[in-house]
Amino acid sequence: MKMTLDILDDFIRGAAFLGTGGGGDPYVGRLMLKQELERGANIEIIDPDDVADDAFILPVANMGAPTVLVEKIPSGRSAVNTVRRTEEILGRKVDAVMPIEAGGINATLPLVVGAMTGLPVVDADGMGRAFPELQMTTFGVYGVKGSPCVIRDEHDNEVVIRCDKDSDAEWLARAVCIRMGVKCEIAVYPMSGHDLKTKGVLRTLTLSTEIGRSIREARETQSDPFEGLMNYLRHSGEKRFCKVLFDGKIVDLLRETTQGWAVGHVIMDGIGDYDGQMKVTFQNEFLAARKGDKILAMVPDLVCILDRETAEPITTEALKYGQRVRVVGVSVPPVMRTPEALAVFGPKYFGVSDTYTPIEDLA
Amino acid sequence: MKMTLDILDDFIRGAAFLGTGGGGDPYVGRLMLKQELERGANIEIIDPDDVADDAFILPVANMGAPTVLVEKIPSGRSAVNTVRRTEEILGRKVDAVMPIEAGGINATLPLVVGAMTGLPVVDADGMGRAFPELQMTTFGVYGVKGSPCVIRDEHDNEVVIRCDKDSDAEWLARAVCIRMGVKCEIAVYPMSGHDLKTKGVLRTLTLSTEIGRSIREARETQSDPFEGLMNYLRHSGEKRFCKVLFDGKIVDLLRETTQGWAVGHVIMDGIGDYDGQMKVTFQNEFLAARKGDKILAMVPDLVCILDRETAEPITTEALKYGQRVRVVGVSVPPVMRTPEALAVFGPKYFGVSDTYTPIEDLA
Repeated sequence: MKMTLDILDDFIRGAAFLGTGGGGDPYVGRLMLKQELERGANIEIIDPDDVADDAFILPVANMGAPTVLVEKIPSGRSAVNTVRRTEEILGRKVDAVMPIEAGGINATLPLVVGAMTGLPVVDADGMGRAFPELQMTTFGVYGVKGSPCVIRDEHDNEVVIRCDKDSDAEWLARAVCIRMGVKCEIAVYPMSGHDLKTKGVLRTLTLSTEIGRSIREARETQSDPFEGLMNYLRHSGEKRFCKVLFDGKIVDLLRETTQGWAVGHVIMDGIGDYDGQMKVTFQNEFLAARKGDKILAMVPDLVCILDRETAEPITTEALKYGQRVRVVGVSVPPVMRTPEALAVFGPKYFGVSDTYTPIEDLA
Repeated sequence: MKMTLDILDDFIRGAAFLGTGGGGDPYVGRLMLKQELERGANIEIIDPDDVADDAFILPVANMGAPTVLVEKIPSGRSAVNTVRRTEEILGRKVDAVMPIEAGGINATLPLVVGAMTGLPVVDADGMGRAFPELQMTTFGVYGVKGSPCVIRDEHDNEVVIRCDKDSDAEWLARAVCIRMGVKCEIAVYPMSGHDLKTKGVLRTLTLSTEIGRSIREARETQSDPFEGLMNYLRHSGEKRFCKVLFDGKIVDLLRETTQGWAVGHVIMDGIGDYDGQMKVTFQNEFLAARKGDKILAMVPDLVCILDRETAEPITTEALKYGQRVRVVGVSVPPVMRTPEALAVFGPKYFGVSDTYTPIEDLA
């Protein structure tokens, strides 16, 4: 499989959906990738099954707050340099790069690195969505170390972090990220092909492309794009549970860039078949959806906010007063709902709820 | 020359004096060093003239706020590990360690590393006093790079910083230091013997020991310890200018641990021959002494606060309401007063004064 101009827009739309508000503005990622493709870059996407067990795989990402990433564009050169420096530090050539998370810019940046270096990009990631912190990967949950984590900025400043605990690496890296301007490029979780195949969330680049396509094809046939999206999610691949949680107009928006993240909440007044209010909280990504006192979906299940007419995903930094939106909740794969996984990126860590209840049980 | 129990107390007292309030509690450094000496450690101090031009010299230090260093004791093991990791990263064995600054714990920590590793310690430093920020060394001023800077904490978390500008390395390292608990061990400014000899402040361990001895010997002969101190400084070695600036009782003390430093001011009411008030500002180290509107001494000249009876140096974190103290100002060597040096650690950087006036001209 190759990334091409033909599938670019579908892929970007799906990546924004899986980003659940975070991962950075997909428009910026699309421009970066489009530029590479228009200059004729060959971007090879390889299936996890085609990765050798002893291959050296390196996730590469942008770290920062999405509110900053729209003004301070990720640097492909800096991202490539995180890969090259990791190779020097570990004394081994990288065989393939990959996304750490499936959402937004961070789904596209490894493809840009692939375009600039000729390295293939593995069709997988470590979150199956986007999460705001470095330790929140299935890699980390199931025993791959995040360290060494190479962090670079566009001025060639470099920080290499080694910690036994990935949450300590996050704690130190976030401080560095803030002082680099709440935006930096990182290479993290260097791992073997075997670890990737057994501990990653597989084929999420394909999933993004198909999600994006399901919305586009429904639009093209004048059908309801939400129908197209939900049909795809319910009946393909992992057969996700998904549900429209609310239709509303944004009447309140609190969005702070603080501690290195975009943090806040959005409140919607019900429209159409929906009354009352819904409140969605976020830390880069949407964390929980509440209607009055009742919680309807919580992290790690996906809470997605989409344009009410076109089903185009809306990211945290693009939320605006008065927008008509639809909130959709989607289940995540079982690998992300184990006790080990929930201990790292479950609702308790984010202060959302002491216990995790799957979205299908809340419905 | 060796560090021995015979000269330990003199050395510590002198290092506290040159620390101008900063560099960490000398009592803590004394305990660490005493423990090593009592277990029979051999601590070799070598003269810069005996260092080969192509030797590999590595300054090692504690980074943090002195207010924190009294509660969170430096780790000799962690400091040794910064040395070992620098050796691994640069692929070369260290020939000798040395202090980055002449003051407080940071004068003693390299000697502890020497005791633990058998490495000799060079009789020199990069400040000739203590300064609060990493770029404020004569090494950096005259062209040695601070990077790679290896930072470690007592939990074996590690951060390696590489920046072209030492002030950028300070900016990133300070954020890491804060998140490590405002206390960490660092190895920084790896350099050649030639650089050390041409760009360092030489023989400051000897200077500390002799300053400490001059105070002790005066006390032992029932003479005025301030006379002993000033006699030594005026007539030995570099023949410093020095002057008692004020005698006073502390009536106001503002001391915050913020941004990774101890920052604030102390105000004294005049006693004895002195009337009015003196205000001394600090950022870890004492920066300037003002009597009313008139500035009497400013950084990089030394502003030292000593016990009014015993001439024991008092550090920033040990200042107390009601203390009877004497403020002494001392000139620094010409290498620290060049335009290049003043651009990095002159009064303008600290917001003390737009232009530097030497203490002898202010008198």
